Amino acid sequence: MNMLVDGEWRTDAYETTNEDGAFDRQDTTFRDRVEDDPDARFQPEAGRYHLYACRACPWAHRILVARKLLGLEDAITVDYVDPFRGEDGWQFTPEKAGCTPDTVNGSDYLREVYVEADPDATCRVTVPVLWDKQEETIVNNESEEILRMLDTEFDDVSDNDVDLYPEGYQDEVDRIIDDIYEPINNGVYRSGFADSQSAYDEAVEELFDALDHWDTVLEDQRFLAGDRLTEADICLFTTLVRFDEVYHTHFMCNHKLIREYDNLWPYLRDLYQLPGVAETVNMDHITEHYYTTHPDVSPKRIVPMGPDPDFEAAHDRDELPGDLPETLFPTA
Amino acid sequence: MNMLVDGEWRTDAYETTNEDGAFDRQDTTFRDRVEDDPDARFQPEAGRYHLYACRACPWAHRILVARKLLGLEDAITVDYVDPFRGEDGWQFTPEKAGCTPDTVNGSDYLREVYVEADPDATCRVTVPVLWDKQEETIVNNESEEILRMLDTEFDDVSDNDVDLYPEGYQDEVDRIIDDIYEPINNGVYRSGFADSQSAYDEAVEELFDALDHWDTVLEDQRFLAGDRLTEADICLFTTLVRFDEVYHTHFMCNHKLIREYDNLWPYLRDLYQLPGVAETVNMDHITEHYYTTHPDVSPKRIVPMGPDPDFEAAHDRDELPGDLPETLFPTA
Repeated sequence: MNMLVDGEWRTDAYETTNEDGAFDRQDTTFRDRVEDDPDARFQPEAGRYHLYACRACPWAHRILVARKLLGLEDAITVDYVDPFRGEDGWQFTPEKAGCTPDTVNGSDYLREVYVEADPDATCRVTVPVLWDKQEETIVNNESEEILRMLDTEFDDVSDNDVDLYPEGYQDEVDRIIDDIYEPINNGVYRSGFADSQSAYDEAVEELFDALDHWDTVLEDQRFLAGDRLTEADICLFTTLVRFDEVYHTHFMCNHKLIREYDNLWPYLRDLYQLPGVAETVNMDHITEHYYTTHPDVSPKRIVPMGPDPDFEAAHDRDELPGDLPETLFPTA
Repeated sequence: MNMLVDGEWRTDAYETTNEDGAFDRQDTTFRDRVEDDPDARFQPEAGRYHLYACRACPWAHRILVARKLLGLEDAITVDYVDPFRGEDGWQFTPEKAGCTPDTVNGSDYLREVYVEADPDATCRVTVPVLWDKQEETIVNNESEEILRMLDTEFDDVSDNDVDLYPEGYQDEVDRIIDDIYEPINNGVYRSGFADSQSAYDEAVEELFDALDHWDTVLEDQRFLAGDRLTEADICLFTTLVRFDEVYHTHFMCNHKLIREYDNLWPYLRDLYQLPGVAETVNMDHITEHYYTTHPDVSPKRIVPMGPDPDFEAAHDRDELPGDLPETLFPTA
């Protein structure tokens, strides 16, 4: 993956695997916070913040789901890059279905937004990006942190009172998000980008051990943290929804399909069927991105037929103890 | 794939796809016949013929299964090449588990056997090869033709009276073998080796249409040609047994797994559990071959975890009308 070095676009600077052949994900670099505090530099205001997202990217997808569920569609604007990421990185191709121009900065490539925020930026150019239209800079480009900000700092500008980080559940939510990250969210990448058999074997075994574990947990409870929908579910959802179409084949996570799991599969459908979530899922963008963007994994750049899982199929998860915020289901 | 040109090994001579990006399989070149006829050049005799095989290759595997079922293990000897096929083509690596030396010609590479048979050979160097120790030449290297010879010409040297091309079924067997070849046996290769999206799409749609069709046929009958086990079943078996571990992921035939089919999956287990068949299946050789031999498909040469289908699981196929030769089940 190419990157910025001192504000210049470089195609030779970024190594994805360490000397053992294991995939090393680099840290993101903009880590400021929007805070619901009159002394804060970045305060929550309707219309002030903008999201740069890719519909294909599971990290950006977290924020798209959160923006829906938390009632922030009116408060936070969004632009969508092209799902194909080539030599020049994420690009705006408004002529393509599901994509938009950069309506805020008018750039052709997302890297221009990064340089606008920091002319000397040395970093990967990733999505999601939370942009502050007032200060004209990037607040944050780390999905977990943006998710938390939207959830906890934007109550006054939200259209509903949904809370995905409820009191009494917070330690558990933090623990789960941390627990699923390395083996599952990042684990599919560690499997697919591994350059050695041993690195692959380690990653894929951890992945399926973790999936088996959470499948068991979800036998008796509707959501990861128990009876409440939380941020942790969003964090798992965007990986699970891509699994059968992409990770199973493209990243060779082919020990099991999600639809072969007794509980993960109906759990995935339960989340998919929450109001507004289905429209955040663009499977065409998802498959195009992965299969055409990683020639070192899929050199022919052919998008496979795929299993086409029926995410709309009925599930009985609502028979489990569970409590969904009423305002998720506004009366028509 | 490299090939012989006028008896010289060339690494630049063979194109696998045509101008539309579709995989073109070249015809095999040695097409003589063993015939149970006193005037024939190649007559069936115990100990006269030798098989060069690769345990990974579905075409060679047909002959290994036929040799078992037809009671020809004592009559026809066999050597096994290394499952990895590199720049120099199929190689003998006797130190490796499941592999043998070339016990007949003492060669290091299978191409030497081809040149021994024809010093001016211009052809791909493939398995299976049926070698005549008496005339010191290749009789045939086309799997369907070798299968038919073993089935119909070696009755006098066989240990049993199994007949996989029975009277009354022959037209149907010929038709089925022909019907399944292009969409299924070769279809998985056409899917995986396609160099264009359109060539892939066409191949993979034909593949799953054909699998769907035969799944329906097998709902009411035990075998492809009806109530009798025939050569047609062997021809389908060696593709099906590789499907979930290899073709689904490596060749992106990922619309469905065989184990998701109501009838193909128990049918596959039924065949796998026939006496002697399981020992012809070496899944380590199969996965090593595909995932490490095609860098244009799987450039990292990593063998995935795989679904590890339980071929030994019970099936109820014997409740369908069907007639297995008694001598397939010798009393202990």
